[in-house]
Amino acid sequence: MDHPHRVVIVGGGFGGLHLAKALARIPVRVTLVDRRNFHLFQPLLYQVATGALSPANIAAPLRAVLKRARNVQVLLGEAKGVDAGNRRLILGDGEVPYDTLVVASGASHHYFGHDEWAARAPGLKTVEDATDIRRRILLAFEAAERETVPELRRIWMTFVIVGGGPTGVELSGALAEIARDTLKLDFRVIDPGAARIVLVEGTDRILPTYPPELSAKARTALERLGVTVRTGVLVSQVETCCVELRTAAGTERVETRTVLWAAGVQASALSHALADTAGAELDRNGRVLVGPDLTVPGHPEILVIGDLACFVHGTGRPLPGVAPVAIQQGRYAARVIAARVKGRPAPPPFRYRDRGNLATIGRASAVADMGRLRFSGFPAWLTWLFVHLMNLVEFESRLLVLLQWAWAYATFNRAARLITGKELLPGPTRGPCSCGIWLGADTHGAPSRRQEASKRERAGP
Amino acid sequence: MDHPHRVVIVGGGFGGLHLAKALARIPVRVTLVDRRNFHLFQPLLYQVATGALSPANIAAPLRAVLKRARNVQVLLGEAKGVDAGNRRLILGDGEVPYDTLVVASGASHHYFGHDEWAARAPGLKTVEDATDIRRRILLAFEAAERETVPELRRIWMTFVIVGGGPTGVELSGALAEIARDTLKLDFRVIDPGAARIVLVEGTDRILPTYPPELSAKARTALERLGVTVRTGVLVSQVETCCVELRTAAGTERVETRTVLWAAGVQASALSHALADTAGAELDRNGRVLVGPDLTVPGHPEILVIGDLACFVHGTGRPLPGVAPVAIQQGRYAARVIAARVKGRPAPPPFRYRDRGNLATIGRASAVADMGRLRFSGFPAWLTWLFVHLMNLVEFESRLLVLLQWAWAYATFNRAARLITGKELLPGPTRGPCSCGIWLGADTHGAPSRRQEASKRERAGP
Repeated sequence: MDHPHRVVIVGGGFGGLHLAKALARIPVRVTLVDRRNFHLFQPLLYQVATGALSPANIAAPLRAVLKRARNVQVLLGEAKGVDAGNRRLILGDGEVPYDTLVVASGASHHYFGHDEWAARAPGLKTVEDATDIRRRILLAFEAAERETVPELRRIWMTFVIVGGGPTGVELSGALAEIARDTLKLDFRVIDPGAARIVLVEGTDRILPTYPPELSAKARTALERLGVTVRTGVLVSQVETCCVELRTAAGTERVETRTVLWAAGVQASALSHALADTAGAELDRNGRVLVGPDLTVPGHPEILVIGDLACFVHGTGRPLPGVAPVAIQQGRYAARVIAARVKGRPAPPPFRYRDRGNLATIGRASAVADMGRLRFSGFPAWLTWLFVHLMNLVEFESRLLVLLQWAWAYATFNRAARLITGKELLPGPTRGPCSCGIWLGADTHGAPSRRQEASKRERAGP
Repeated sequence: MDHPHRVVIVGGGFGGLHLAKALARIPVRVTLVDRRNFHLFQPLLYQVATGALSPANIAAPLRAVLKRARNVQVLLGEAKGVDAGNRRLILGDGEVPYDTLVVASGASHHYFGHDEWAARAPGLKTVEDATDIRRRILLAFEAAERETVPELRRIWMTFVIVGGGPTGVELSGALAEIARDTLKLDFRVIDPGAARIVLVEGTDRILPTYPPELSAKARTALERLGVTVRTGVLVSQVETCCVELRTAAGTERVETRTVLWAAGVQASALSHALADTAGAELDRNGRVLVGPDLTVPGHPEILVIGDLACFVHGTGRPLPGVAPVAIQQGRYAARVIAARVKGRPAPPPFRYRDRGNLATIGRASAVADMGRLRFSGFPAWLTWLFVHLMNLVEFESRLLVLLQWAWAYATFNRAARLITGKELLPGPTRGPCSCGIWLGADTHGAPSRRQEASKRERAGP
């Protein structure tokens, strides 16, 4: 070989970053391509969205993390496609040749074919998503404080979270705490504690991947915080002033101005490029079906890891899209590459070591599923705290996050509740809604067309 | 009186916030109007722009700070004008009646009639400004790392800071440290330490409001960090690829893609409303000339404090637009209002107690002007540290900022260097510049029109 083996990694998430770190000890030349200049600790992103932490607390600049890995070059760029025949990764503004390609570009939320909902019901995948959700939550309370019509105030103070997985559970728990504790003394007109928080889940229980008894405990904990938990309910429409829910009994409408999306997972667009160029098979979420060594069948030089990969265990159920899977796959991919470069036999097939799952439900409450060991409440919360702190990449982040958690625990405060970005003031409270109904009395005191409309509806045929 | 005295404060900066806090003990009804939901500690904003701190570390939610001041209502809204005849503050979406109005809406940077420069040379007044500048600085290094033509790489690695006041001095010092220390090991192609940082000041010395010997010390400290200090130089043009400087010797061009604006102060637009409705006189920066009790002459019910006020001392020089002036004026305004409400004699005219000025120049270096006591270096830096920490509004912020400073001091790291917002990738390195010259060779390898153009220029008439 006249050049060192070139490994190109797409994505600096859990999988890509741990792979790059592991490759620092191996004689290969590594290029890590990411659109963002930082690794994001996504499990805590909901804490940014709810004003408990700052984005920088859970983000580590990729160049800083990898600065001593002298064989790793970080490249800020957008991977647009793959040319498997010529072994090149195609960027927005160039190409990068590879000998081994590892695609770890992850997944994003999706709207089940209703992309038009994205503007009204933001998901939580990026730092910008988190500060956008933070802005919407805080502006809803501000709008309620200024609104004089009680009916319209109630709409501002209703929050709907779609999706009862860990993100939805954690978001609704944090939101309930903000309303009940953090904002308790902040307003002069409204009582933030009267906010209505509705968590909507399509299956018959929240945290559906956990054991049923932990789902039940999580539900009880949320309800104690004042969250309305609706299971077996699908969202059939998202409008400016309401969401339409479909239940076994029919459809109903929940009036709200703030809908947060924590449902649906869609693989990054790069999986389609892999299907086109390398004949990769995709599952129904767009994830790439990989072999036992995480390679794309027929292309031993292309590996897929993390949320983008669909790795089917002996049991037949694909591994979930969680950080521990991505980390273990990243380390495994490094072993595969090392074996090839050094001419050693390939490692045995990848096996996921499930160390358990944790989800937190607000203050001092969580559920833990550690195989046979299942527990909840304060001990689970302490475990959650410790595991998340220890997995933050930078030691400084651990100190900062610990300090802020301790402070929030003692004072109920959430210091990072800043309204930032483009729209800084509450929007108009009244006006036409996308569902065709006029919201509220107009500013000249004319009778509410909306109320008339709903009267008509109720009278209906 | 059948209603309590209504005080309306515009602006939750240093002046407005300290006034509102002081009024909490007085039987008046207070409305504090601000566009933003937080008080911003502007003296540390350059640390957000240079990745040392997060926005939330220097921002305190107004509602949280004032939650126990039960007679103070915070109103998130934009003050658009004043109707002095009817004693009403006009908002974007309504009006607020007052008995006493205190305008503390501050000032922003201005471009000496060249508003078109704003897009190319952002100023530093808001949280969004700071994260925008942070993005531009980091993207410039990223673009340099990807650029292959050395001449173009040099342009990306040249930074021009306009304005040699405290903000410009602190920005250029921090930028030099980022280049020399923080990013030292981060890149594989460029040497960030080779970055060129040019500080441009129109008068004959930087920190012109400080004693000359401290200006000289600050200059030496900056030069030791590698900053090129240019005094007696005005900016006559800001283009995409360069700035044009006017010196005593003529004009010259500095090629750069990153210009930061730290010059010029312009009073908020509300001063013009006060001129129209209350006959207030404005100085050439648009500040409102106030009487000895901070009222608008002829309108004892309207006070102006902080950066928006032009208060002329016995000496004839107006007070500078710094935080201590605003804080003392806020407290004084509360005394004026208390005396009126309680029917007591008015307090003696406002007098500013100047406790000194501090400016920092990077790591462990600062200048302090405490009247007769003038010092620099490490002791000044410790004083700067202590004064700034103690003036942060929230105790939690003090701990968080102290922890991050200690960490940065020990490790040279700046953890908050995230590229966030809309444009996440470096823009095209080559293309037409607004000055009419084409930047760089085009992507098909044709000879550089820019180089040809500069050859023609050099050959000249």
